[in-house]
Amino acid sequence: MKFGVIGAGSWGCAFANLLVDNGQDVLVWARRKEVVFEINVLKKISYLNGIRPKFNASDNIQEVVDFSDYLVIAIPVQFIRENLSKIKYWDNVKGIVNLSKGLEIKTLKRVSEIIRDFVSIPYTVLSGPSHAEEVAENIPTAVTIAGENVEELQILFSNDYFRVYTSDDVVGIEISGALKNVMAIAAGVLDGLGGWDNSKAALMTRALYEMIKFGKIFGAQEKTFFGLSGVGDLMVTCNSRHSRNRLLGELIAKGQTLEEVMKNTKMVAEGMYTVKAVVELSLKRGIDMPISSEVFKILYANKNPRLSMLDLMRRPLKEEWYI
Amino acid sequence: MKFGVIGAGSWGCAFANLLVDNGQDVLVWARRKEVVFEINVLKKISYLNGIRPKFNASDNIQEVVDFSDYLVIAIPVQFIRENLSKIKYWDNVKGIVNLSKGLEIKTLKRVSEIIRDFVSIPYTVLSGPSHAEEVAENIPTAVTIAGENVEELQILFSNDYFRVYTSDDVVGIEISGALKNVMAIAAGVLDGLGGWDNSKAALMTRALYEMIKFGKIFGAQEKTFFGLSGVGDLMVTCNSRHSRNRLLGELIAKGQTLEEVMKNTKMVAEGMYTVKAVVELSLKRGIDMPISSEVFKILYANKNPRLSMLDLMRRPLKEEWYI
Repeated sequence: MKFGVIGAGSWGCAFANLLVDNGQDVLVWARRKEVVFEINVLKKISYLNGIRPKFNASDNIQEVVDFSDYLVIAIPVQFIRENLSKIKYWDNVKGIVNLSKGLEIKTLKRVSEIIRDFVSIPYTVLSGPSHAEEVAENIPTAVTIAGENVEELQILFSNDYFRVYTSDDVVGIEISGALKNVMAIAAGVLDGLGGWDNSKAALMTRALYEMIKFGKIFGAQEKTFFGLSGVGDLMVTCNSRHSRNRLLGELIAKGQTLEEVMKNTKMVAEGMYTVKAVVELSLKRGIDMPISSEVFKILYANKNPRLSMLDLMRRPLKEEWYI
Repeated sequence: MKFGVIGAGSWGCAFANLLVDNGQDVLVWARRKEVVFEINVLKKISYLNGIRPKFNASDNIQEVVDFSDYLVIAIPVQFIRENLSKIKYWDNVKGIVNLSKGLEIKTLKRVSEIIRDFVSIPYTVLSGPSHAEEVAENIPTAVTIAGENVEELQILFSNDYFRVYTSDDVVGIEISGALKNVMAIAAGVLDGLGGWDNSKAALMTRALYEMIKFGKIFGAQEKTFFGLSGVGDLMVTCNSRHSRNRLLGELIAKGQTLEEVMKNTKMVAEGMYTVKAVVELSLKRGIDMPISSEVFKILYANKNPRLSMLDLMRRPLKEEWYI
């Protein structure tokens, strides 16, 4: 099968290598010519130190689309619309597989909704605890997919080190994938304040509630939040040294401003955008989202991170389960 | 209110200090005279480096029971029966609060069931992500209690750094508290094999399923596993540098035998006992417990830890949610 991968970041490239390992034909689209040169000529992946690309790249997005049976989306959510608008013909594409996690700030849309603004092609979302750095090193990883053609894709994606489970909850997977990046910023704040394990576990437990509460309003199934793409991805994103969202929170708690962090790190921490959409949606729909609100206040209203965390702890006592 | 604490380990002492902070009268029972001397005279807690005891201790268990309105149980589960059998009169005690987590190997009983073999006094269990080392340093912590008198105890236990939520599921809290120690050994094995974040998050997600599957057979409520005493405690036990069960798994994966680990570390890793009861119960009741079985094989049948983890990854592909 032929796979075009839109995006040559760490996850796009790691996933492209996985597809080649599984015997698929792969062509990756990179926006910048230098990245195409690095991949095709120097055989290097700038975002994955020491990993050789097993695929070729092109900076012509239409060429990649024309090549593809399946088109894989692996670019930051805020840039999906802009890039898809460059595609004129979708004729060959029989399905879209989305790896990106987040909500579009301008429209408050999920990725499946953004794509539906362009085409009606079968859509599948893949999510779970899958840091690109580890998948690229063939470290055992398990993920979930939901949408159309999942039985076919489950077989095409799975191998010895990459296991794919199926689900029927596209909305739940998209929402948990978006929200966990926000929660990871909060977890990183706790790491930055002093590495409090008890507090962090409590925060992550309450984060899971908050994700469920939000998701249910939009039709997500509760079970999804307890699976690989829910609590699994939340755990890896809140704990891993690879997590950019967690690192953002940590650096801010240690005194850097958002501008300084953005200047000093090259990568995108999706949660800093998604939190804006989450807070706006939660206000519109009347959903109480205490952790997301505090993340928003820390990032955009200069609230002291320590005060934010203490405010979360000081909420009134009640029964534990109140979704 | 007067609280007697049975057990002068790290959690018993940290909880005793918390009670004193909250204005309660506290007397702690320690089995060994040296520990009583350390606490009362040297003002030291051997298991909590640098923390001063705010309470007195006695090695006379009956004296502590006679003193108590509430009796707090904080000793390893395998020693509860032996120590409770030394108590002759329970007349003053209006309630028991259990902090211990595990299953009794000999009888396969939970702590509430062990205690019921001695007395019928109102019983409450307290659990959640609460490493003693951090509670002793007043680091923000949140836990759950279930059983009788929870409204009174919620107020007596809560303060600025310790928040208590209530639940109605004693069985669920006892079972999740017991099983998470087994799962933490498996998580530690992955840490020892190389710190694979993706694999560990996948394992912990499947561990949560396994805990729910087991718990439901014994009447536990599913929601409990998604709360502080379920996924919250699982996360802290699988990730924290303070966790003895996680450390046991890590050291074994790095090549030490169980005997060597036990000789080199003084503390009790409850999961190494509980796993025996879990495996026996799961065989009797026909519950498929892949992670617990592998932990048992690693600890007691010399199975290679790397092979165990790969065997877990190689189970057949299916739909994700199948409880």
